[in-house]
Amino acid sequence: MRVFGIDPGSQRTGYGCVDSDGRRHRLVLCGAVRAGVGATFPDQLSIIYRSLSALLAEHRPECVVIESIFYAANARSALKLGHARGVAMLAAIETGVPVIEYTPAEIKRAVVGYGRAEKQQVGQMVKLLLGLDYVPTPHDAADALAIAICHLHRGKRDRVSFSSEGGAKKRPGLLKRSWRDYRP
Amino acid sequence: MRVFGIDPGSQRTGYGCVDSDGRRHRLVLCGAVRAGVGATFPDQLSIIYRSLSALLAEHRPECVVIESIFYAANARSALKLGHARGVAMLAAIETGVPVIEYTPAEIKRAVVGYGRAEKQQVGQMVKLLLGLDYVPTPHDAADALAIAICHLHRGKRDRVSFSSEGGAKKRPGLLKRSWRDYRP
Repeated sequence: MRVFGIDPGSQRTGYGCVDSDGRRHRLVLCGAVRAGVGATFPDQLSIIYRSLSALLAEHRPECVVIESIFYAANARSALKLGHARGVAMLAAIETGVPVIEYTPAEIKRAVVGYGRAEKQQVGQMVKLLLGLDYVPTPHDAADALAIAICHLHRGKRDRVSFSSEGGAKKRPGLLKRSWRDYRP
Repeated sequence: MRVFGIDPGSQRTGYGCVDSDGRRHRLVLCGAVRAGVGATFPDQLSIIYRSLSALLAEHRPECVVIESIFYAANARSALKLGHARGVAMLAAIETGVPVIEYTPAEIKRAVVGYGRAEKQQVGQMVKLLLGLDYVPTPHDAADALAIAICHLHRGKRDRVSFSSEGGAKKRPGLLKRSWRDYRP
């Protein structure tokens, strides 16, 4: 399964693509989209949309996973972040594959095992889980890979919990799907 | 000159297109993009983007004018509104014509003459200035037309003030361009 993770941001949008056979994960590519110095805000939106659209068309993931955001320092920064996330989400939707959202705490829990893990811990686990010699940089790229890995872990867990009614009853919490799953 | 105004919103995105010969304005079309009941949020973003892209491609304005937003009830609603405005702005940018932003107060000042005018007053002035028998509905459409008219009035005023140095010196306030003008 190929999963494409996106970590939206108004300054930099991280992306990371991971292949998995259900046991092992392999890094396909990762990086961050960043508009050059002096780019206007509309230019930035256009660059995020076009770059992600091109990457998604090239790497053809089976699903796109994006970090959901519910808070921001203030309404103004929330508006700016919303613009960037909106065009990133649009690029994902336009591919026609399912677009799935996870909260930051869900991502950290799925990757590190602790919902309030530090950025460095997330980076280290991404390095370990992908069998890399280095922590991917910039941190937005590592975060995007963590989002993709989160889906691979959560999807696996959800499959397990749904595959057996008895098992699901023993672990009722696993049936609760707090993430939102959009299928076109 | 043909101007296309956009009033972005997370529930409904108003649009309004106006032709002007510099003296008289004529309504080309107006309306609002609204996702059907039960549409997911990503669906809504996709509908806003595709509808506006199609309208802009069909009506080929010389510039697109969009309301700028700096405040929202809270960070959560700001995020949602930011998503919708981001994809609306992207549709505008992708046309390749200049995209210009005005604040709500600038729009009201340019159309009604008073920066804190009520919605009804804006609707009545749009009706009057476009020589219509009715106030365009829904109000998002009337607001989008007001944004387009604002640009026609402001552009005219700016041209006048820049055409004569003496005039500009007499009215220095007119040289201050508080709106942001993005040219691709």
